[in-house]
Amino acid sequence: MNSLKDIAALMEHALGKLSLPPEPALLYEPIHYTLQAGGKRIRPLLTLGCCALFSDDLQKALPAAMGIEVFHNFTLLHDDIMDNSSLRRGRDTVHVKWNPNVAILSGDAMLIYAYDLAAKSAPEKLSQIMPILNRTFMGVCEGQQYDMDFESRLDVSPDEYIRMIGLKTAVLMAGAMQIGAILGGADPAAAQCLYQAGMQLGTAFQLQDDLLDTYGDTAVWGKNIGDDIACNKKTFLLIKALEQAQGEDKERLHELLASTTIGREEKIEAVKAIYDKTGARKETEAHVERYFGEASAIIDQIPVEEARKEPLKKMAEALVGREK
Amino acid sequence: MNSLKDIAALMEHALGKLSLPPEPALLYEPIHYTLQAGGKRIRPLLTLGCCALFSDDLQKALPAAMGIEVFHNFTLLHDDIMDNSSLRRGRDTVHVKWNPNVAILSGDAMLIYAYDLAAKSAPEKLSQIMPILNRTFMGVCEGQQYDMDFESRLDVSPDEYIRMIGLKTAVLMAGAMQIGAILGGADPAAAQCLYQAGMQLGTAFQLQDDLLDTYGDTAVWGKNIGDDIACNKKTFLLIKALEQAQGEDKERLHELLASTTIGREEKIEAVKAIYDKTGARKETEAHVERYFGEASAIIDQIPVEEARKEPLKKMAEALVGREK
Repeated sequence: MNSLKDIAALMEHALGKLSLPPEPALLYEPIHYTLQAGGKRIRPLLTLGCCALFSDDLQKALPAAMGIEVFHNFTLLHDDIMDNSSLRRGRDTVHVKWNPNVAILSGDAMLIYAYDLAAKSAPEKLSQIMPILNRTFMGVCEGQQYDMDFESRLDVSPDEYIRMIGLKTAVLMAGAMQIGAILGGADPAAAQCLYQAGMQLGTAFQLQDDLLDTYGDTAVWGKNIGDDIACNKKTFLLIKALEQAQGEDKERLHELLASTTIGREEKIEAVKAIYDKTGARKETEAHVERYFGEASAIIDQIPVEEARKEPLKKMAEALVGREK
Repeated sequence: MNSLKDIAALMEHALGKLSLPPEPALLYEPIHYTLQAGGKRIRPLLTLGCCALFSDDLQKALPAAMGIEVFHNFTLLHDDIMDNSSLRRGRDTVHVKWNPNVAILSGDAMLIYAYDLAAKSAPEKLSQIMPILNRTFMGVCEGQQYDMDFESRLDVSPDEYIRMIGLKTAVLMAGAMQIGAILGGADPAAAQCLYQAGMQLGTAFQLQDDLLDTYGDTAVWGKNIGDDIACNKKTFLLIKALEQAQGEDKERLHELLASTTIGREEKIEAVKAIYDKTGARKETEAHVERYFGEASAIIDQIPVEEARKEPLKKMAEALVGREK
């Protein structure tokens, strides 16, 4: 049976062995650059963790796990062009280091590479996993489009936000889990349950991510705290606060969102105060608990011996900052 | 047995039935817009024409044929951003009609949609056709990158150019043919022969396209004649002329390429004169003949009754303007 440590080591080894042709350099170098930048490797770990529920042979899920990680990195590459982001994991983004055309085309190649890796899965499983990959990947594109649509709207509802992060963040984690289970030999019902667990877990993860951006510890988290507030990002916290704030608080919140003169730190503190007062923070925390609890309950029900669930459970806990 | 007319009707009907979700509109509308713009539908016809060599049931190849056509249109959409083209088939390009972000993301969705369609092929064939699709799609990206690399070079050799169009244009036609054959029930050797025929045919087609841009009839061809010359596009004609021109001609050609003051028509006539004098035109025409002849010879060798080859042969002839 594989421990979380075994799984992580296998995954890192496989990632390190990915290799692409040297030419044309402007097509393949940005892909190497992007894949070598690190990251938490959440999705391939989930694929392998779900394979491990049903099999000790994780090699079966390795190509698909790699494909899903490459796909995730492709979305970051193209999102960075669309968001005009200049930094990613502490380094220049591809469209800054090279140029937007290179970023577009090497991203396209990366998406194809993701399929190329996943297609190395067992031939008899391809007709099961391809539709999941396609639906999942398309869901991520839909989520990104909704996220961009939301930028110009002040009336996004909490339900719309949950649906958007369900597409942008959760479906890929859900698909990663379902595919890992299938490749491990799960029956379709169990694999479908793990897809549902992934949807809950992915939603909990994104809401926790929103909380950390506002309430996290820079030293621990490695990002600037308060960026979401500073740039008026429509997180669950802001959407809830916009919905709940009354009277003076409501006025003040709209003023803070519209202002171009209030300083960064002052704005962050003032918005946080409204998040606390309106209960937006508490409600977001409660949602994280609820979604995480639902994911855990589904995993508990999977009919395999408990010891097999250890790696996956540890991954899930880490995703919402509940490491023991 | 299916005639070319049957095949074309089946293909158009299937294209007309493609349907995508209505929301998010900014993701899916540009895909509809792009697919409805028309085009010669060369690649799906080749897929069906090769399926028809081995089977009367063309439905087997229809999803893959649609996927390949969607992929081709995806490449046009993203290429138009990279080339900063504002018109495609007489209409605004997607990045002009909407914006570059919409064009990037809807293009990504289109690439996923291409895979989604192709994955609806018979489950037992997926493990054969997926690697061909992946290799082919990646080849097209490589070709596009080489094409962009060539823009800033004056020393591109004829062999390099043939290799570039082999990737940018021919591999997709070759893959379309191989996949159609496999889905029709061809044995791997026959399918591989049709891939080779597609490489030859695709190369002949692109060289013929280069010739038409310079020597075609606007009324028949529907494009402005001489655009390639006007914008110094590195076609086979120009590369050959740069290689062959001597003395005064060489000097004059470099002068024409560098000048920003010579008028469009004067430049076109002067460059054409050098193409004639250096033999660049004759050599390009001879290459079209040779590649087309090799494609035809391969198709002649395929061990199926001659009547089955009629649609494919007619398609091949149309591609190089040899309709009888």
